[in-house]
Amino acid sequence: MNTTARNALISVSDKTGIAEFAAALAALGFRLLSTGGTAKLLKDAGLPVTEVAEVTRFPEMLDGRVKTLHPAIHGGLLARRDTPAHMAALQAHGIGAIDLAVINLYPFEATVARPGCTLAEAIENIDIGGPAMVRSAAKNWQDVAVLTHASQYAAVLQELRASGGQLSAKTRFALSVAAFNRVAQYDAAISEWLSSVDFDASQGQGESGSAPFAQSAPVRAPFPAQANPVFIKLQDLRYGENPHQQAAFYRDLHPAPGTLATARQLQGKELSYNNIADADAAWECVRQFTQAACVIVKHANPCGVAVAPSAGQAYAKALQTDPTSAFGGIIAFNRPLDGPAAEHAARQFVEVLMAPAFTPEALAVFAAKPNVRLLQIELPADTAHAAPAARALEYKRVGSGLLIQTADQHRLQETDLQVVTEKRPTPQQMQDLLFAWQVAQYVKSNAIVFCKDGMTVGVGAGQMSRLDSARIASIKAQNAGLSLTGAAAASDAFFPFRDGLDVLADAGAACVIQPGGSIRDAEVIAAANERGIAMVFTGVRHFRH
Amino acid sequence: MNTTARNALISVSDKTGIAEFAAALAALGFRLLSTGGTAKLLKDAGLPVTEVAEVTRFPEMLDGRVKTLHPAIHGGLLARRDTPAHMAALQAHGIGAIDLAVINLYPFEATVARPGCTLAEAIENIDIGGPAMVRSAAKNWQDVAVLTHASQYAAVLQELRASGGQLSAKTRFALSVAAFNRVAQYDAAISEWLSSVDFDASQGQGESGSAPFAQSAPVRAPFPAQANPVFIKLQDLRYGENPHQQAAFYRDLHPAPGTLATARQLQGKELSYNNIADADAAWECVRQFTQAACVIVKHANPCGVAVAPSAGQAYAKALQTDPTSAFGGIIAFNRPLDGPAAEHAARQFVEVLMAPAFTPEALAVFAAKPNVRLLQIELPADTAHAAPAARALEYKRVGSGLLIQTADQHRLQETDLQVVTEKRPTPQQMQDLLFAWQVAQYVKSNAIVFCKDGMTVGVGAGQMSRLDSARIASIKAQNAGLSLTGAAAASDAFFPFRDGLDVLADAGAACVIQPGGSIRDAEVIAAANERGIAMVFTGVRHFRH
Repeated sequence: MNTTARNALISVSDKTGIAEFAAALAALGFRLLSTGGTAKLLKDAGLPVTEVAEVTRFPEMLDGRVKTLHPAIHGGLLARRDTPAHMAALQAHGIGAIDLAVINLYPFEATVARPGCTLAEAIENIDIGGPAMVRSAAKNWQDVAVLTHASQYAAVLQELRASGGQLSAKTRFALSVAAFNRVAQYDAAISEWLSSVDFDASQGQGESGSAPFAQSAPVRAPFPAQANPVFIKLQDLRYGENPHQQAAFYRDLHPAPGTLATARQLQGKELSYNNIADADAAWECVRQFTQAACVIVKHANPCGVAVAPSAGQAYAKALQTDPTSAFGGIIAFNRPLDGPAAEHAARQFVEVLMAPAFTPEALAVFAAKPNVRLLQIELPADTAHAAPAARALEYKRVGSGLLIQTADQHRLQETDLQVVTEKRPTPQQMQDLLFAWQVAQYVKSNAIVFCKDGMTVGVGAGQMSRLDSARIASIKAQNAGLSLTGAAAASDAFFPFRDGLDVLADAGAACVIQPGGSIRDAEVIAAANERGIAMVFTGVRHFRH
Repeated sequence: MNTTARNALISVSDKTGIAEFAAALAALGFRLLSTGGTAKLLKDAGLPVTEVAEVTRFPEMLDGRVKTLHPAIHGGLLARRDTPAHMAALQAHGIGAIDLAVINLYPFEATVARPGCTLAEAIENIDIGGPAMVRSAAKNWQDVAVLTHASQYAAVLQELRASGGQLSAKTRFALSVAAFNRVAQYDAAISEWLSSVDFDASQGQGESGSAPFAQSAPVRAPFPAQANPVFIKLQDLRYGENPHQQAAFYRDLHPAPGTLATARQLQGKELSYNNIADADAAWECVRQFTQAACVIVKHANPCGVAVAPSAGQAYAKALQTDPTSAFGGIIAFNRPLDGPAAEHAARQFVEVLMAPAFTPEALAVFAAKPNVRLLQIELPADTAHAAPAARALEYKRVGSGLLIQTADQHRLQETDLQVVTEKRPTPQQMQDLLFAWQVAQYVKSNAIVFCKDGMTVGVGAGQMSRLDSARIASIKAQNAGLSLTGAAAASDAFFPFRDGLDVLADAGAACVIQPGGSIRDAEVIAAANERGIAMVFTGVRHFRH
C-alpha cells in the first residue's frame, strides 16, 4: 500500500448507501481499504479496493473473529501525523496512515430484539474488531475522520467536495464524539442484555457443560443487573424546576411515536422544565380517550378533564371544573384543534397548548399570541387510546439511587368490574365511573375524582389521607359552583375505613368505583348499601406519586 | 510460547494486588504474558514473564498506543477450543491460546475528574487496546476467564485452587458479564465527557488549528449531548408503585455517603417500591436539620416534622401534626434511636423506621416486631446538615424522554431574608419561619406549611391552587386539634394574589415566609401589614412536584 496517499478504511455491517459513498470517496482520490463482505460489494460496484488482509499480510481467521485487530490497521488509525516518531514507525513497518474510517457494527441490538435469540447468537453478534477500529479512529480525531452511520455520509461528502478533500477540525471532532457515543450505546446494550441473563435458571437442572445453555434462549430477569439507559439531549433548559437548578431535556434513543419526546413546537416561548413535566401529564392523560377529550393540567395534576363530541366542547366542559387553577395551565387535546376551539382557549391565559394537529384557522388564532407554546404530537392511528409503549420504563430518583418500574399501562374494561352493592350503576353511571377511573389514574395519590356527564366536577389530589382527598374534591366542586348530586366518584386505592365513602355520599355521590381489597371491604360495602350508593370494584390500584 | 500450556495475559493500569495474584497464578502453573509497566512490576517481583512483544514479534509502537492490537493476542483470546479449525489456525500461526486475562483500563474517569483536565489528557487516557482485549476475552467466555478489577482476584484464586486450576462455566460467564459491564461504564464516561465539550467555545476566538484546543481544558456544557447514566441493581422488588407493575431498585455507580442507596436494612419485611420512595422523601428532609429531628412521611409528603432536644421528643411532636396520616407511615430520625424513643414509636403502626444508628435497647424493642423495617444510614459528620452530594442529578421521566436537573440543594440562611412588612418577626418567629421553610422544601407543590415551636401544625400539600393548599393546611390543623394562632407559615412559591395570604391570616398565622417576586407583591405586602403579619422574602422558590 502506498504510505503517503490518503486512505479510507471501510468496514460496514449495515451497507446502506456504502457503494455510492465509497465511489464518491474514490472520485475524491481516496484509496479504498476494506474487508470481507464490504470489499466484495465495492468490487462488484466496480470500485478499486485493497483487502485488509493484503495490508496486514495476515489472513482473516477464526471465522472472521480476527480480521482487523492488527498493528497495520490500528497503527494506521492511531499514528499522530504531528509526531515524527509515529510517522517514522509507520514508515519502518510499511504501514499506511488511514485518514478516514467508515465503520458500523454487527447488529447486536437487532439480534437480541428477535424473539428466541440464543446466547450463542447474541455473543456472535458482539463486534470486537469494529468497536476497536471506531475507538482508535475516534481517539485520533485530529488526524482521522470516523463515520459510524449512513446518515453521516451526505454531509461529510459535501464538506469534502467543498474543501478539496479536507474536513474541518470541528467536523472531525463532532464525528469522533458521535463515534464514542455510538460505542457507548452498543456496549450499553450488550451489558444490559447479558447482565439480565439468569445463568442458573438458564442451565436448567443439568450440571452439564455450557454448550446447551449457549444454544438456547436464556432465561432473563425483567431488570438487568446493570442498567445503562441512554438519552439524547433535545435542548438545554433555562433552568430546572426552580430557577436555581440547571436542567436539560433528553429523549430516549428510540422514542415511541405519539410521545412527548416526539413533540414539535410550532410557536411560542421556549419550553420550561415545568412546562415539559406538566405537558407530559396532560398528554398521557388525554391520549387514552377514544372520544374527543380535553385535559387541563396545573402543578402536575389534571384540574379539568372532559370528553365531548368535539374538542371545543370538551374544552368548555374541562374548564368548568376549576377555572381558577386552569389559569396559566397546560391544555391538551386528542383531536385536531380547530378555529372555534382555538378562539375559546385563546381567551384564557395558557402556557402550553397541545394537540395531534392544528387547523390553519387555529394557527391563525395563536399567531396573534406569539408567546403561547403550541406543541404538535402526531398520534399514530394504532396508538390512539393505546397504552404507552409496551416496554416503557418509569424512573423515580432517590438518594444516589433509582427506582425503575414498568409503566402503569393498565386499561380497565367494563367487563373487569365487579358490582358489590345492592344497587347497580345505570348505563350512564357506568360510563361516568369508567371516565372517573381513567382520570384518577393520572391524579396524584391519594386521588378522589368526582365526574358527571363526561366531565370532572371535583378533583382531590395529593393528600396523605384519603379522607382529605375526598373532602378537597368536594370543596373544590363547591368553589366552582358545581353540583355533586348524582355524581360518580373514583378512588385510586381502596378505602381503609367507611369514613371516606361517607364523605363521598355526604357530597352527593350516587356511585363509586374503587379497587376493593381492604380487610374492611365488608364495612365499606355495608356503608354504600346503607347510603344507597352503587359501588364497583376494579381489582386494580392506580397509585401515582 | 508454548501453544498448549495454560497462559494468563496480564495488563493492568491499576496494579493493586497484581504481583500477589500473578504469583499465585504462576504457582498454579500459568505462564504469565504481560506488557510494559505490568511486565516490569512482575519481573521485579521475581516472576517469570513473557513480554507481549515476544509473542506478537512486533514491537510496541506509537508511544504505547499499539501494543496488543495483534492477531497473536486476539487470536489467542478469541479462538474457540471446541472448533478444530480455530485451533488449527492458532497452530498454523504459532499462537498460544490465552485462558485467563487480567486487564484493567487507563484511568479515564479519574483523569477527567481532575480540575483543569485538558482535552489531550482526556484523549490520551482513552484506552484502546485494553477494552479490545477485555471484549475479546469476554466474548469467548466459554474458554477464557477475564478479570477487570482487583476485587475479583481473591474469589477467582480460591476457585482455581479448589478446582485444580479450572473455573466453572458459571464463574466464567459472571466474569464475562462483569467485563462487559465495566466496558459499558468506561465508554459511558467517555461519551458523556466528550459530548459535553463545546467545540466553538473551547476554540476561543482564534480560527487556528486544533492543537491549542486540545492543550487546554475545554469549555463544557452542564449537560452532555448524550447522557449515559449507569445503575447497579440492589434488589428486585415484589412489584412497583402498583401490584401490576414490575420494579427494581438500583444504586448509582458511586453512591454518595449518607444517601438512601447506602442504607442497610437491619430487620423487617422486604422493602416495597413505595417504602423506598417514601423513605427517600423522609430521609432527605430529616438529614438537613442540625437539631435532633423527626420526619413522618406518607404518600411522598411529610405529614409531621419536628425538631427537639432529643429524638424521642421530636417524634412525639411530629406525631401530633397528623396522627391519622402517620398511621402506616415512614419515620426518619437524624439521631441514633434510643430505647425510650423506640418504645414510643413502636406503639404506632410503622412501615419503615430510619436512623443513622440504633441503640441496643432500640433494637431490642423492635426485635419483638419483626415486620417493622429498620433502615440504618450512616451520616458522615461532614454530610449531616449538608446538601445532597454536590453533583447529584434529579431525573423526571416523561413520554420517551427524561428531564435531568441538578438537585434542589439551596439552604437558606437567616441573613438571606428580606423583611418586607412593618412588623419584624421576633427571634422565636424567625426560628419557626426558617423551620417552616425547610419543611416546605420537601412538601409537594403547591405547599403551605404552618409551624410553631419547632413542629409542623398544618401541612397543605400537592394542590393545583395555592389557595387550596392554604385552606387544607388550616383544615388539617383543626382536625388535629392544633391551634394556628401565632403560627409561622411558609409558602414554597410566591402568592399571585392577596387571597392566599388572607387565608393564612384568617387561620391565625402571625408571620409568613415566601419567595416574593410576584408582580402583585405590593398588594400582598399591603395585605400583610393590614392584617398585622410579619412577612419575609427568601428570593428562592422550592417547587417540588
